[in-house]
Amino acid sequence: MPAELKKLKENTGKRSKKVKAIYPDSIHMAIADGLSYNDFNIKIATLDEPEHGLTVDLLDETDVLIWWGHCAHAEVKDEIVKRVHDRVMEGIGMIVLHSGYYSKIFKTLMGTSCSLKYRVNDDKQLIWNIEPSHQITQGIGDYIKLPKEEMYGERFDIPTPDKTLFIGWFEGGKVFRSGCCFQRGHGRSHHKVNPEYFDIPDWRRKMSLL
Amino acid sequence: MPAELKKLKENTGKRSKKVKAIYPDSIHMAIADGLSYNDFNIKIATLDEPEHGLTVDLLDETDVLIWWGHCAHAEVKDEIVKRVHDRVMEGIGMIVLHSGYYSKIFKTLMGTSCSLKYRVNDDKQLIWNIEPSHQITQGIGDYIKLPKEEMYGERFDIPTPDKTLFIGWFEGGKVFRSGCCFQRGHGRSHHKVNPEYFDIPDWRRKMSLL
Amino acid sequence: MPAELKKLKENTGKRSKKVKAIYPDSIHMAIADGLSYNDFNIKIATLDEPEHGLTVDLLDETDVLIWWGHCAHAEVKDEIVKRVHDRVMEGIGMIVLHSGYYSKIFKTLMGTSCSLKYRVNDDKQLIWNIEPSHQITQGIGDYIKLPKEEMYGERFDIPTPDKTLFIGWFEGGKVFRSGCCFQRGHGRSHHKVNPEYFDIPDWRRKMSLL
Amino acid sequence: MPAELKKLKENTGKRSKKVKAIYPDSIHMAIADGLSYNDFNIKIATLDEPEHGLTVDLLDETDVLIWWGHCAHAEVKDEIVKRVHDRVMEGIGMIVLHSGYYSKIFKTLMGTSCSLKYRVNDDKQLIWNIEPSHQITQGIGDYIKLPKEEMYGERFDIPTPDKTLFIGWFEGGKVFRSGCCFQRGHGRSHHKVNPEYFDIPDWRRKMSLL
Repeated sequence: MPAELKKLKENTGKRSKKVKAIYPDSIHMAIADGLSYNDFNIKIATLDEPEHGLTVDLLDETDVLIWWGHCAHAEVKDEIVKRVHDRVMEGIGMIVLHSGYYSKIFKTLMGTSCSLKYRVNDDKQLIWNIEPSHQITQGIGDYIKLPKEEMYGERFDIPTPDKTLFIGWFEGGKVFRSGCCFQRGHGRSHHKVNPEYFDIPDWRRKMSLL
Repeated sequence: MPAELKKLKENTGKRSKKVKAIYPDSIHMAIADGLSYNDFNIKIATLDEPEHGLTVDLLDETDVLIWWGHCAHAEVKDEIVKRVHDRVMEGIGMIVLHSGYYSKIFKTLMGTSCSLKYRVNDDKQLIWNIEPSHQITQGIGDYIKLPKEEMYGERFDIPTPDKTLFIGWFEGGKVFRSGCCFQRGHGRSHHKVNPEYFDIPDWRRKMSLL
Repeated sequence: MPAELKKLKENTGKRSKKVKAIYPDSIHMAIADGLSYNDFNIKIATLDEPEHGLTVDLLDETDVLIWWGHCAHAEVKDEIVKRVHDRVMEGIGMIVLHSGYYSKIFKTLMGTSCSLKYRVNDDKQLIWNIEPSHQITQGIGDYIKLPKEEMYGERFDIPTPDKTLFIGWFEGGKVFRSGCCFQRGHGRSHHKVNPEYFDIPDWRRKMSLL
Repeated sequence: MPAELKKLKENTGKRSKKVKAIYPDSIHMAIADGLSYNDFNIKIATLDEPEHGLTVDLLDETDVLIWWGHCAHAEVKDEIVKRVHDRVMEGIGMIVLHSGYYSKIFKTLMGTSCSLKYRVNDDKQLIWNIEPSHQITQGIGDYIKLPKEEMYGERFDIPTPDKTLFIGWFEGGKVFRSGCCFQRGHGRSHHKVNPEYFDIPDWRRKMSLL
């Protein structure tokens, strides 16, 4: 994880009882906790705040934006999506987690439908590390094992990634490009941010392994 | 040019006297003329028509869509852009010509700002063919020479192309990735259309060389 | 499969009793049979022939070269590897099958070690079609199922493919980029051969499904 | 330039009077001087030394290898090329400068002929920075200007680069992909070396601008 990561911002959907049982302090807090091993300056932004918390000022001081969303993608305002997109074009890094694959911002950045196969089931997943020398994947070994996971399967309708880091294997027979890097836009060179764009399902779990 | 190209559709902006002098029958007719060496079934759609002429029926029977636009990008309706985008996701081929680089549909497909350097000047341009074995570039030799051309220069803010076919050299000192291929979306396999997406400035002139 | 495929040439290793039981007429004949549904002009070249059968004359009239090998990679002469490599640079298509991943010609073309995980076991394999609109994969559906297959697993040490067509799922928990396209070299444009280079394990079985 | 760069090694050809006039202390010393602004631990290896100076011990402690050669590519021993290639597969970074494009090690890594257009002439060159947010190109502005330069022109027979950083414009009408990144091999993750492989003509001059 690059040293420049200073802030975490997240939009989150409405939470069911089931989710509350697993993430009592919310999913965004669980993600933030996963980053707490480092001295990142983390801030959180959620759907219900004005401008979804993604104010111009906050984005201006953001180096890496982590996005998670699930049920409420449609409620994210187009003007905020455009604002975030503009900032990615200028060079912030962005990590879109798991069900964020269907968010407006991810679809805008990809230019494709981002559809995939999907099944809510407790499949065992193995996430194979196919680029073990990449800065994101160093030191995590051959694979990450998740005992129970929602199944995401190919074909995932995305452009050919600049780099595919992870390929997921699901017990039920599916495969998935579980971690992909895409560079989009100019980059903000004076901050030395690597302007790549990551879609990394289960980053939270990976982080807990670090 | 793949044999599956059957229809040409074009949106065109408003025309100045200067343009009329060069293209008395309109730019879209000049493009259509350039394709007339073959027995493509060509149809034309322009901005001023209802739905810009890009009706559901017309798109449903289209294999390859050629797009040109200049001053009037903002006047193209978002719902029509979405309709065209959906059709590209389903598999039609699309060729975006020259100043179409700043059209809504091209920016939607790229996911980037698509900005570039620009100068209206009569620069001589040499378009170097860097992939001479690609089906688009076969038989056109090392380069295409354009005596007078508007200058487009790098950095062109696009994702890394799947394939860069042409690099342009401009007398005034600029370079430009003048022909790029991007695959986006699923493809309509039953029509055997190659679902690539081309941005080829000066295709018209190239065609006249074939 | 492009219409330009006219000849099949193959180098084969020494055959055990077990292999003879499965392929009584040799593996190269099984591959040739798989192509017989079309009117390709197929010729066969094997390791034991002078120049491994890959004479200058034969290569000169070849459009697509299919390579299979297993135990005897080291016995292939360097000068013949160079000759084949030169022809690929000039534009013939080449398909390297399965255990050919460790042949001299494949390693020469890749520039990498081409190492992978490997296990001789009767794993069930599902080969997922992740680019269903590509000309190679059209019409074969979501996946190919192989009841018993040797396991090949990631990390497969190859350059990032131009296009990954297939990702394999193995019952035992492994994944593999089972079909990849790489363009290498100039291409022989006058034959309209698509100068891509394919590594497609189980092409034979795939062909039998067509 | 990554902080992990600790050593510089170079093979150099025989030197003419003309070259001596420009580089009185040799080209390899000029390259080393260009790196002296930093506290890299630089070592030099030349063609005439035993094993060309590229001993196992030296390579084992190398993080980034910079290669320059011109007339004497054929004199580099195959076993040393293999040794260097093995080390790149294991993860050292490598920068191949200018006429090194035709070295055995570069051709081995590319898997292609690496041929290009070539002219000894004092062309003015502009090297356009088309990825200004990449860590290699940050802060050098839109372009680097070289008043007199040997012309290298397309088509440069290389695989599609992972990333094209620079495109060169030559006064005489040619263009060239002047800086390209390729990842090849596993990477040596414990050293956090970014295992990319750079072909950057005129790196020396670029360095002097930093």
